[in-house]
Amino acid sequence: MKLKVQPLDIKVGKFKVVLNTSDAKELGIIAGDRVRLRGIKSITAIVDTTDDMVSAGMVGIYHEAQGALGLQWTEPVDVMPAKRPSSIEFIKKMMRKEKLTKDEIYNIVRDVVDESLSDIELSAFIVASEINSLTDDEVEWLTRAMIDTGERIEFDTHPIMDKHSIGGVPGNKISLLVVPIVAAAGLMIPKTSSRAITGAGGTADLMEMLSPVNFSASEIKEITEKTNGALVWGGGTNIAPADDKLIRIEYPLSADPHCQLLASIMAKKGAVGADNVVIDIPTGTGTKVPTLVEGRKLARDLISLGERLGMNVECAMTYGSSPIGRTVGPALEVNEALKVLETTKGPNSLIEKSVSLAGILLEMGGVSARGRGHDDALKYLRSGKAHAKMMEIIEAQGGDPTVKSGDILPAENKIELKAVTSGYIIELDNKRLVEIARMLGAPNDKHAGIKIHKKKGELVKVDETILTLYAEKDWKLTQAIESAQRETPIIVEGMLLERMPKFREV
Amino acid sequence: MKLKVQPLDIKVGKFKVVLNTSDAKELGIIAGDRVRLRGIKSITAIVDTTDDMVSAGMVGIYHEAQGALGLQWTEPVDVMPAKRPSSIEFIKKMMRKEKLTKDEIYNIVRDVVDESLSDIELSAFIVASEINSLTDDEVEWLTRAMIDTGERIEFDTHPIMDKHSIGGVPGNKISLLVVPIVAAAGLMIPKTSSRAITGAGGTADLMEMLSPVNFSASEIKEITEKTNGALVWGGGTNIAPADDKLIRIEYPLSADPHCQLLASIMAKKGAVGADNVVIDIPTGTGTKVPTLVEGRKLARDLISLGERLGMNVECAMTYGSSPIGRTVGPALEVNEALKVLETTKGPNSLIEKSVSLAGILLEMGGVSARGRGHDDALKYLRSGKAHAKMMEIIEAQGGDPTVKSGDILPAENKIELKAVTSGYIIELDNKRLVEIARMLGAPNDKHAGIKIHKKKGELVKVDETILTLYAEKDWKLTQAIESAQRETPIIVEGMLLERMPKFREV
Repeated sequence: MKLKVQPLDIKVGKFKVVLNTSDAKELGIIAGDRVRLRGIKSITAIVDTTDDMVSAGMVGIYHEAQGALGLQWTEPVDVMPAKRPSSIEFIKKMMRKEKLTKDEIYNIVRDVVDESLSDIELSAFIVASEINSLTDDEVEWLTRAMIDTGERIEFDTHPIMDKHSIGGVPGNKISLLVVPIVAAAGLMIPKTSSRAITGAGGTADLMEMLSPVNFSASEIKEITEKTNGALVWGGGTNIAPADDKLIRIEYPLSADPHCQLLASIMAKKGAVGADNVVIDIPTGTGTKVPTLVEGRKLARDLISLGERLGMNVECAMTYGSSPIGRTVGPALEVNEALKVLETTKGPNSLIEKSVSLAGILLEMGGVSARGRGHDDALKYLRSGKAHAKMMEIIEAQGGDPTVKSGDILPAENKIELKAVTSGYIIELDNKRLVEIARMLGAPNDKHAGIKIHKKKGELVKVDETILTLYAEKDWKLTQAIESAQRETPIIVEGMLLERMPKFREV
Repeated sequence: MKLKVQPLDIKVGKFKVVLNTSDAKELGIIAGDRVRLRGIKSITAIVDTTDDMVSAGMVGIYHEAQGALGLQWTEPVDVMPAKRPSSIEFIKKMMRKEKLTKDEIYNIVRDVVDESLSDIELSAFIVASEINSLTDDEVEWLTRAMIDTGERIEFDTHPIMDKHSIGGVPGNKISLLVVPIVAAAGLMIPKTSSRAITGAGGTADLMEMLSPVNFSASEIKEITEKTNGALVWGGGTNIAPADDKLIRIEYPLSADPHCQLLASIMAKKGAVGADNVVIDIPTGTGTKVPTLVEGRKLARDLISLGERLGMNVECAMTYGSSPIGRTVGPALEVNEALKVLETTKGPNSLIEKSVSLAGILLEMGGVSARGRGHDDALKYLRSGKAHAKMMEIIEAQGGDPTVKSGDILPAENKIELKAVTSGYIIELDNKRLVEIARMLGAPNDKHAGIKIHKKKGELVKVDETILTLYAEKDWKLTQAIESAQRETPIIVEGMLLERMPKFREV
């Protein structure tokens, strides 16, 4: 059927067209079906229908499809029914809990990457993954498919080290310490990180305060070959691109299917050619992994998937019920991490965790004897070599290698939350802390965040400051303090927090 | 946040807006989240984000949201983060196979009807329904919610009769006979029907050749009170509107979750106030219900759901592996049905099935003694009363009551498929028949379709015509015959069909 083109100059992320219901009927198709469009080039697009938005005899073509067709608007385009992607059948197999073949899984992942599936179909894939899960074979194929449908980094020398954290703990800035320690020890660690989606700051959000983080795969290779380390944003590369596309679907459902989690982590490690990977699994109430039993199960699954993919994986179950260090939010966290590199002093929770994980990598990489990794890692920190290495990495990524912790300060706009009674802190709620940090503006407002003066188990005296909240904007400070007031993140032996006198005047 | 409005004059079926990524970050939200917009009126909309399509400081507002806000484009609109519908949490409960409360299910259905959920979320609801199903209580609530969120017809007199077919059998034009028979017997039967989605003609597609079918609930009531019967398009009413909205999601997945099927059927019956319902369950290979065991299970579920809703339900398992009658496609089917009404003669599969189902309704409605319904129904047909009633209904719906079967003819463009050998027809594939009928143009091209000269089990002689294919357009005839050639719908004892000599010249 020849139709005139009606440009719909809106980006929708995939090839989509809108047909008048009468033309769709004539073609024997309805919304959700596919059509083949032949302009200068040919494409397959997902069909939507309308009674009035697009007239009969016309086809509304969204931005992406317009570009791909290479058409002038005066030319008619040939529209004919096309088959739906066969991956939909394979997703339906998953819904029936039938086992998929390697080809079928590759087929799905390719269609995810190519944006050939509608939101309805992608959601079915995620929900079926969540409810029915996948076998070990299928998870391996899913991971391999995610690796193979994206860019890869191939290093000439090995081993390549990598580190990942399951997340869910506020203030977890340890990559800023682990990467320079490991790199200082002579091991290559091309670390790609994410930005926070629901958190107060991902490693990419933090590192961005020190240097650019948006690099291509070949640039990451170059930086790593130069300095042994890199701290970049994974989303800026084309590494395992299926992952980001699936996260867009998982987010509205707050879904994180176990099999997808495994594949997502390991695909990113596999794509950078990692040989040895340490995975931090924060465990405890308020984290993604509430119990040790669940943590061990996850660890086993990651290790076994690593074996299948030829990667050596060790997992560290870490205490996740309390923030790491005493800061939450980009500027505060970068300040804290740099201070540790500069002075080798700082919160025990931060230094110990970083040194332990770095130590595991030193042992896995063969530069430390078994049982010596932790102490060796501490030496690289204490000797200043980790600090020097971090400055090298910052410089290689185009940042200022003379940066000092004192240069990276939180917003001036702040308010202190004080204890209304003396006693021990018996509760410090991770989720509330993150919510409040986000209300303050983190991670987008880089200088917003929370300084934690007293942590769980510590003794606090009446009127002593427990938290300082920082925000770039007044209204965000107000909003956050009101929220903290309504539902406090901290409980001092049965007491609730009180607003500051200053604030009462508002 | 005050943003300038950038109209996106495209209908997307729900309230949706597009924010620049930087503004979205500032608001602390990402794609899939909700925002509250305050113009002259306030609405909640689903957020999409873009790096370039909408500039920072602007909000792209799609058609439906534009209308609802009642804004001039020169005015800024206040945009603030809003909570997601709580129904998403209840859908997640379904994904975890937890039992939902009545309120939670009403909540979901209301949000479906209000278009408050994105395709991703709606798909999760369908897929969770398909994989995890629902308990009997939940299915009852789902059905009640579907009834209560739409228009209802309340008749002053009772009983109200209704009829439904699970579908999946080509040529199933029996409603055109059942409704006038039952109405002629003095029982009220306000039958709403669907159009074909994947079939070659729904009852609404057929009836439309005889009269308008698009009526409001109150018009349907009026027509039924006048003539005892109505044959209208359900999609033209606001009866159980959730159903159509869910079908849009089910279609791309070819999903038809059992619990949704039950609720969809019974909600439409409940909304018209039906007291007695007969449900036709075509059973056999090539139908939606391949085995009698599955048919009985479905029947039990429908009967039990009917009891919960105060409806008296009987189910008839019918032979579904062969087409009903000898025609497929609107004009051919209407012609065949009218001919039966006019002459009381026609294919046994059509007359017997219609009379049996009508007979069950006569017994359920108390106008026939138990065991006498079938014969009584046949009397209404033979006496011409059913024919007269059909003409009354056609007239009440605004059609021509003098219409004759001879007025409704198939397209002149036709081709015959002949037997290449003598023997018994051992295969007549429903699905292929429907596919070919759709290629011929049915149901949109009303005069396209298939006449079946020989059915399964019948003896055919070499060169005798088995099928005649009709199409309004030449290219559709060509396309259909080529398809029939590639994969024949009919097998004569081991032989394949041959193309006509005429066709060989092409």
